[in-house]
Amino acid sequence: MSTITTDICIVGAGPVGLFAVFEAGLLKMKCHVIDALPQVGGQLSEIYPKKPIYDIPGFPMVLAGDLVQNLMEQIKPFHPTFTLGERVEELQKQEDGSFKVITSGQTEVNCKVVVIAGGLGSFEPRKPAIENLENFEGGKGVAYMILDPEHYRDKRVVLAGGGDSALDWAIFLADVAKELTLVHRGTTFRGAPESAAKVTSLSEEGHMKLLLKSNVTEVHGSEDGLESVTILSDGAEPYKLEVDAFIPLFGLVPKLGPLENWGLELEKSAIVVNTFDYSTNVPGVYAIGDINTYPGKLKLILCGFHEAALMAQSAYSFIYPDKKFVLKYTTVNGVPTI
Amino acid sequence: MSTITTDICIVGAGPVGLFAVFEAGLLKMKCHVIDALPQVGGQLSEIYPKKPIYDIPGFPMVLAGDLVQNLMEQIKPFHPTFTLGERVEELQKQEDGSFKVITSGQTEVNCKVVVIAGGLGSFEPRKPAIENLENFEGGKGVAYMILDPEHYRDKRVVLAGGGDSALDWAIFLADVAKELTLVHRGTTFRGAPESAAKVTSLSEEGHMKLLLKSNVTEVHGSEDGLESVTILSDGAEPYKLEVDAFIPLFGLVPKLGPLENWGLELEKSAIVVNTFDYSTNVPGVYAIGDINTYPGKLKLILCGFHEAALMAQSAYSFIYPDKKFVLKYTTVNGVPTI
Ligand SMILES: Cc1cc2nc3c(=O)[nH]c(=O)nc-3n(C[C@H](O)[C@H](O)[C@H](O)COP(=O)(O)OP(=O)(O)OC[C@H]3O[C@@H](n4cnc5c(N)ncnc54)[C@H](O)[C@@H]3O)c2cc1C
Ligand SMILES: Cc1cc2nc3c(=O)[nH]c(=O)nc-3n(C[C@H](O)[C@H](O)[C@H](O)COP(=O)(O)OP(=O)(O)OC[C@H]3O[C@@H](n4cnc5c(N)ncnc54)[C@H](O)[C@@H]3O)c2cc1C
Repeated sequence: MSTITTDICIVGAGPVGLFAVFEAGLLKMKCHVIDALPQVGGQLSEIYPKKPIYDIPGFPMVLAGDLVQNLMEQIKPFHPTFTLGERVEELQKQEDGSFKVITSGQTEVNCKVVVIAGGLGSFEPRKPAIENLENFEGGKGVAYMILDPEHYRDKRVVLAGGGDSALDWAIFLADVAKELTLVHRGTTFRGAPESAAKVTSLSEEGHMKLLLKSNVTEVHGSEDGLESVTILSDGAEPYKLEVDAFIPLFGLVPKLGPLENWGLELEKSAIVVNTFDYSTNVPGVYAIGDINTYPGKLKLILCGFHEAALMAQSAYSFIYPDKKFVLKYTTVNGVPTI
Repeated sequence: MSTITTDICIVGAGPVGLFAVFEAGLLKMKCHVIDALPQVGGQLSEIYPKKPIYDIPGFPMVLAGDLVQNLMEQIKPFHPTFTLGERVEELQKQEDGSFKVITSGQTEVNCKVVVIAGGLGSFEPRKPAIENLENFEGGKGVAYMILDPEHYRDKRVVLAGGGDSALDWAIFLADVAKELTLVHRGTTFRGAPESAAKVTSLSEEGHMKLLLKSNVTEVHGSEDGLESVTILSDGAEPYKLEVDAFIPLFGLVPKLGPLENWGLELEKSAIVVNTFDYSTNVPGVYAIGDINTYPGKLKLILCGFHEAALMAQSAYSFIYPDKKFVLKYTTVNGVPTI
């Protein structure tokens, strides 16, 4: 468990959460940023890092990944701290009016203001509808992400899926696992053609088994863990395959998750905010970027940037109710050091 | 007189007016942009082209002039048209619901929507408080900007001021005018030290006359034009100097000007708008950037960008009330050609 104390805790390291660090920094407020993903950048890094964006003002074109890099560079002067790979679970109001934010990794952040820049929510694996699947989660044979491939050395592994992540891990694990099977319900892959070709040749050369037009329909085992899965291939009888691990890789879906239980006013899975400062119904808690909603809301990056600027002014008044705030141009005053 | 027909007429070619062209273009609406200044970029070009800005999202630092260049590049695909050097004077509502915008140069723009991105207003010269000065404006000897220096060849010219523009024009006109006098109320110059040094040496070498701690206090002449000015130097008797031209160069001040008479709701020289689309009290007329006001308003470039995006959505619905609008990401759909 680690404890961090800061001015503002930002939930979500997407482009909007990152820029919020900048706007807060201009007003000399320090930030700690938490994201459930192992990297910063939100949707831009997770979904389309190599794709061009055309509507960031001042950039006729910028690759999503480059925009994230630029934002990281821009906030450097303010020395933000990060907790990555942990999901924010709990928000506790303290007696002195401050907040405690608690993550899935038991990190605790004590702060004066909370800024939720959670986008579409935290990305969670899409799970297939197989009965009792959850009985084998948590180290008992079923996983939805591969954190450490060495864990599967000399094991009998079944992967399922037809996208890049299923193909890439199949190629990687072909050398590592004792027996590897890739189960895919279609006949063509959504992933990169080169990867699909490589998987096909690995299977032809006997390094792995490729089952097309197939589905895993059942999982079996004991309290100790997974023992076998039932595979149904098109036009064939279902059969049982003995396995140590079953890893469905069907992509990630964003979920609002724990934020839903923080007493915030919600509308269609978005947090309702005021347009004068993007504050929520809980004083001291703001919501900016894709996660908020208000009349006219557009889920665009440039809108989140504006929201971050107005939020920061308001957060400043919230933290320092007695200080009078005067807007200063960066051109005239430069960027302060904090 | 020229007549232009377009979807949206944008008043003001500052950063916000320019980006409005982009947001309108994404929705395939064509724009014509008018500015009273001879160049695009608004305050960025007129006041601080070589200065760095630090709070444009994604740019750790960008020179104001470069940001303007980038915005011009970004809007190129939408082929906006421009009328520069003319001030917008009149707004007329037509019977069919469209608008006619009329400039000081008698340019008429017929359009469906008007977007006022006029910043602090149009820049107008700061005039010294000298009686009857206006009698000699309009080609009769008194001017506040030098449009064509050749106009002053072999004339007797008095310049007044202590900034860059007074210094730069003094250096230029020393070779052109028959007699050149620079009158400055102080002893040091606000302009670049190199220019001040050059002016001093030009005066020492007899190419021009430099009067420090001095003011022009009176102007004299007939119906035909200016004949002389009275100069008062510190510790001396006032004296008359025969001249053909008197050019006070005391900088530009922004004035809301004619926009004040358009029936728009105003608050402290700013136009009151709704935050869901930045529309004014006149349907079909929007105000974005520094010129508008609403609860929480910050006069920042990045806020104007957001306002431009929401405005464009609303303008689209205003022009095409029957079309259903669906937000499309530029990454997914690219930039349309119009
Ligand atoms: C394919 C695609 C193309 C796009 N193209 C464009 C475009 O051209 N222009 C444009 O403006 N927009 C575009 N967008 C939208 C743009 O990506 C979003 O508007 C932007 O990512 C929103 O930024 P954000 O910071 O609000 O949220 P996000 O980028 O979604 O980041 C939110 C972060 O919060 C984290 N998080 C959420 N809940 C928790 C929690 N409880 N604990 C810890 N972390 C949490 C998430 O893991 C995530 O990393 C596109 C989107 C997609 C998918
Ligand atoms: C020294 C200085 C430093 C600054 N630093 C920063 C900074 O670091 N960050 C930041 O975000 N902002 C900064 N600003 C503020 C920033 O420049 C403004 O927010 C921005 O220029 C507003 O853009 P705009 O397009 O709304 O208006 P403007 O840039 O003011 O442009 C408006 C244009 O409209 C024209 N216009 C007005 N009325 C008429 C009319 N009737 N007819 C024709 N044309 C008309 C004007 O001539 C002008 O060109 C700074 C400003 C100054 C002066």
